[in-house]
Amino acid sequence: MSRLDSFISRMQSQRAVLNHIKDTSMVAADGVILEIGLGNGRTYDHIRELFPTNRIIAFDRAVGSHPDSTPPEADLVLGDIRETIRQFAGKDVAFAHADIGTAYPEKDAQTLTWLPQSVAAALASGGIAASGLPLDHSALEPLPLPAGGVPGRTYFYRKR
Amino acid sequence: MSRLDSFISRMQSQRAVLNHIKDTSMVAADGVILEIGLGNGRTYDHIRELFPTNRIIAFDRAVGSHPDSTPPEADLVLGDIRETIRQFAGKDVAFAHADIGTAYPEKDAQTLTWLPQSVAAALASGGIAASGLPLDHSALEPLPLPAGGVPGRTYFYRKR
Ligand SMILES: C[S@@+](CC[C@H](N)C(=O)[O-])C[C@H]1O[C@@H](n2cnc3c(N)ncnc32)[C@H](O)[C@@H]1O
Ligand code: NI
Ligand code: NI
Repeated sequence: MSRLDSFISRMQSQRAVLNHIKDTSMVAADGVILEIGLGNGRTYDHIRELFPTNRIIAFDRAVGSHPDSTPPEADLVLGDIRETIRQFAGKDVAFAHADIGTAYPEKDAQTLTWLPQSVAAALASGGIAASGLPLDHSALEPLPLPAGGVPGRTYFYRKR
Repeated sequence: MSRLDSFISRMQSQRAVLNHIKDTSMVAADGVILEIGLGNGRTYDHIRELFPTNRIIAFDRAVGSHPDSTPPEADLVLGDIRETIRQFAGKDVAFAHADIGTAYPEKDAQTLTWLPQSVAAALASGGIAASGLPLDHSALEPLPLPAGGVPGRTYFYRKR
């Protein structure tokens, strides 16, 4: 399996889980969504199409997204997510999507020291998380992956 | 269709065409391959797996590829491809893959002023080109896309 194969598989898995969250109405129409790792904005654009009534707040170090999928300024939180996400603790977020894994294991290990607890703290009880990195936290109950979700590529949880 | 949907479709189409080129033995085992636009190196990695005996020369402005899929220094050509590709005119390249489209129409229009003729000049007669941007050139005969190739996402040619 080439790195291209892995990448396509990861993107397909991500999309399958997002579409499942929509299809099964897991996110209330007025719930806040966090897009953790805006990047190019492709996934932001997909989430925006799936959840047109929800506020989607996107995080990244700096704006690197395409103009067609750059959030309004009021919904952009710039800086190191490790710091910027703290203000969302207790905010009863309905759905958090995180795509901040890299192909560098040391970087990902660093991210995993703060991401699971930050996501758990931001979510409402019953809130949903989907992530490219595992979110190992006692408050986050792993959910079975839907069809098309690939184990080890997308991780899926509900906050207890 | 979201930007994520388009992106997945483009990557799947690219892979389908690459795999077809391999499956139908369109590239001689000792032919030189050009990877025009190395980027992260994912497609380079895929081409390398498909064509293990071929020399693959990769072009980009600077090295931005993951260490796992960075070509040896002797096979890396850094700088503006518009300039660096000129030296390959007449080099009888067997296969040129170009993935240097952007989501910015003005940039792509600029690229299209030089890419088709540069690819045509580099290829041997009978050589193959696959590209994310159209290569409109009298010496490049469009080939039918294989199953999985998506019209408008991947363009496929043989040099007359
Ligand atoms: C894989 S990309 C996200 C791609 C995105 N899903 C898309 O559709 O384009 C990850 C992004 O997360 C950002 N990122 C990763 N770790 C971060 C951190 N600690 N603070 C801020 N941004 C971070 C990177 O800058 C990068 O843009
Ligand atoms: Ni491999
Ligand atoms: Ni759309």
